[in-house]
Amino acid sequence: MKKETLRLDVNNMMDAMIGAGYGISADQLNAVAPLAAQAAEDFRRNRGTGMMGWSELPYQDVSEILELAKQIRARFRYFVLLGIGGSALGPIAIQQALNHMRYNELPDEKRNGPKFYVEDNVDPERMKQLFDVIDPAQTCFNVITKSGSTSETMSQYLIVNKLLTERLGDRAAEHIVATTDREKGNLIRLARREGYRTLVIPASVGGRFSELSPVGLLAAAVCGIDIRQLLAGAAYMDELCAGNDLFANPALMAAATQYLAMKNGKTISVMMPYADSLKYMSDWYAQLWGESLGKRYALDGSVVNAGQTPVKALGVTDQHSQVQLYTEGPFDKVVTFLGVDEYREHVDIPDGAAEIPAVNFLCGHSLNELIKAEQFATAYALTSAHRMNCTITLPSVNAFTIGQLLQFFEIQTAYVGSMLGINTFDQPGVEAGKNATYALLGRPGYDEKRAELAAAPKPDERFIL
Amino acid sequence: MKKETLRLDVNNMMDAMIGAGYGISADQLNAVAPLAAQAAEDFRRNRGTGMMGWSELPYQDVSEILELAKQIRARFRYFVLLGIGGSALGPIAIQQALNHMRYNELPDEKRNGPKFYVEDNVDPERMKQLFDVIDPAQTCFNVITKSGSTSETMSQYLIVNKLLTERLGDRAAEHIVATTDREKGNLIRLARREGYRTLVIPASVGGRFSELSPVGLLAAAVCGIDIRQLLAGAAYMDELCAGNDLFANPALMAAATQYLAMKNGKTISVMMPYADSLKYMSDWYAQLWGESLGKRYALDGSVVNAGQTPVKALGVTDQHSQVQLYTEGPFDKVVTFLGVDEYREHVDIPDGAAEIPAVNFLCGHSLNELIKAEQFATAYALTSAHRMNCTITLPSVNAFTIGQLLQFFEIQTAYVGSMLGINTFDQPGVEAGKNATYALLGRPGYDEKRAELAAAPKPDERFIL
Repeated sequence: MKKETLRLDVNNMMDAMIGAGYGISADQLNAVAPLAAQAAEDFRRNRGTGMMGWSELPYQDVSEILELAKQIRARFRYFVLLGIGGSALGPIAIQQALNHMRYNELPDEKRNGPKFYVEDNVDPERMKQLFDVIDPAQTCFNVITKSGSTSETMSQYLIVNKLLTERLGDRAAEHIVATTDREKGNLIRLARREGYRTLVIPASVGGRFSELSPVGLLAAAVCGIDIRQLLAGAAYMDELCAGNDLFANPALMAAATQYLAMKNGKTISVMMPYADSLKYMSDWYAQLWGESLGKRYALDGSVVNAGQTPVKALGVTDQHSQVQLYTEGPFDKVVTFLGVDEYREHVDIPDGAAEIPAVNFLCGHSLNELIKAEQFATAYALTSAHRMNCTITLPSVNAFTIGQLLQFFEIQTAYVGSMLGINTFDQPGVEAGKNATYALLGRPGYDEKRAELAAAPKPDERFIL
Repeated sequence: MKKETLRLDVNNMMDAMIGAGYGISADQLNAVAPLAAQAAEDFRRNRGTGMMGWSELPYQDVSEILELAKQIRARFRYFVLLGIGGSALGPIAIQQALNHMRYNELPDEKRNGPKFYVEDNVDPERMKQLFDVIDPAQTCFNVITKSGSTSETMSQYLIVNKLLTERLGDRAAEHIVATTDREKGNLIRLARREGYRTLVIPASVGGRFSELSPVGLLAAAVCGIDIRQLLAGAAYMDELCAGNDLFANPALMAAATQYLAMKNGKTISVMMPYADSLKYMSDWYAQLWGESLGKRYALDGSVVNAGQTPVKALGVTDQHSQVQLYTEGPFDKVVTFLGVDEYREHVDIPDGAAEIPAVNFLCGHSLNELIKAEQFATAYALTSAHRMNCTITLPSVNAFTIGQLLQFFEIQTAYVGSMLGINTFDQPGVEAGKNATYALLGRPGYDEKRAELAAAPKPDERFIL
């Protein structure tokens, strides 16, 4: 049987479709091919090493995760993930894609596992209100931070740990699973002290590339998602993206066209799925793309201030919010549509307005036809307005195709980072804010930063209204 | 008693704070003051006329809405809003801001009204799955479209109407409220034919400016939100933004600084609330800002391709996703933080890691302190990296301050549109996509468009991988 395979269409990135001078010319594409081939070569050479452990995740053994998930499913009514950034965005995206859209509201017998919450903020209102809808005595908390130094997650952990200990005494530890580094950091120390179950995040896997590690896989398995199929899809995509030829490696073609778009002044990358199930793929992609490519320095030490700003949109919804801007505003963006050939449901539009032709033309069609027509029409409108756009189509949304999509974007990101000559896998720019937070909260060792904050220029009262 | 008042701080937009040449100089601000004063003058002269009916919404009589909401609350267990764009984004934002964050999951006795769903897409999976969690026989459907020609909303209406008629026969009409134009369009015709309850959207109020019309107010009142306080807040802000002086009119200062930022190459406007309750304000703002200012033509007919792309972020969450890019990437954005002085809940961070200093420093603080420290630290990090940012602070989140926030952004948008010399209130760019959809679905009168689509260049198979 032929495998279901993602389809990438970059026609509307090209001059030939959107008008000479607005897109990429055949010459430009030819000229960039050697650089792209070099990026593919780099990837092949470095895969699995340094911070590129993610490339090997599709091939891991998941039996331990599956066994733990089985135990959690049998015992707990609620599963709460405490994590932020890469520890949260993947799990949210996968859950939205592969489970019921109103999962937590379904009656127990229709749900695919425990109710599932991802708590990726430290808003006190949200934290308090979570406890209005879960019962900690029936909850498994999955604390996820590789370093154990993430202030947000560790604060949440402390709150949950106290609550569980007050309620359950010695049995509190049974309600916590720590997903963290094998031996380094604060969380593994606490896990050993308290006797928590642990899962290991490989040292060579960074947060935004960690969805197919235990970070994402435990939550998915707990919610009944077929994680072996996720990995099979990722492995299949890995195979499809093996070569150096643009025209035979979809992630490389995507990378090369996005790279040329960036060089051509497209500073914004809009991700616009035409499926509610894929809505949070845009959030996951926003971190992957924004944090990987947004870099001050190139590897050669020069200041480049690289990066392209990810924008999250949703079709057809945002046609009524953002498409006016996309078609008439500045020529500064590339839109990537995510489409679906076969939705998992079919809904007909029935009769009911025979005397009103401006409504009646809808009758006899289906929502399936309508959403696809609108996707086509929006791409057509952008193309007619000389705006770069491309489309990735999933034959249907399932664990196998979602696994492909994740791996596709990760490989594409690695390629583009390589073409830009930057370090795709670090995030030095978040240190400044972290250090200021530490200083404000009185963490030992941050006296100098505290002094710096105290010496900062004072705001002018005239500019506060 | 002193009224709770929004606070705008634009210090970090200025050279004095972020470094000479990176921000706005005192001279630039002085130079733009006459243009800003003219925008304030235009607003005052045109308010309530043409498409500026929204400026008078704070002063409307809401007794009919309150009476209808009371009846709905007494009779229905579910309230489903069918609408898209401006009919949906405001209601979602208000609900998130002013009701429990897990409202639909609360037990009935703790909830403030019927369960509430906003259906703003035509994804067949989502539509089908809605009916897994509601019972139509206990549901009031609020169909919202001013023109009655919104394909998405009318399709949803036809589906719901058939379902209700099959289930409830003649009583189906009691389950539908139509919010639409007083006399024009398809929905008012259907409402009269079927005998639906109706609420009127004033002809002078466009979709993205309609939250404080019956579009937003009915849903809010049904969910127990104090809509008189919303309007009182909006009226209060209207009063605060009356003058021509930048330094005495917060919306004018905000408009002038954003305008100068745009002129200075800031093509991206990031809205980053530090409160989950304000998360969907960014979505509402994204339409307001994107669709109002994203225009091909100026009023004088010249091609300007104006606009600034709205980006939705959430503090602290997106510190772990986007701040790397914001501090190190291109100098192409302005970040607007939304902060809160007093959260409605307080959560302490307890002890539990005394032997680990890198965690223990958090203990004894609260999530309230942590989230505020992180907001300050992020603004500080951006400022240190010479990035324009400003902050709007709500003393607390309630109907009165949210009403202020809505009116503030609407007035600011009108000012900026005026300064740019564009039509802030139309959206000609969405027609192309709509017409292509009509053609694809066989709507009578679109033969020419169908011929155009058929004649479009064919994609090159080499670019499909």
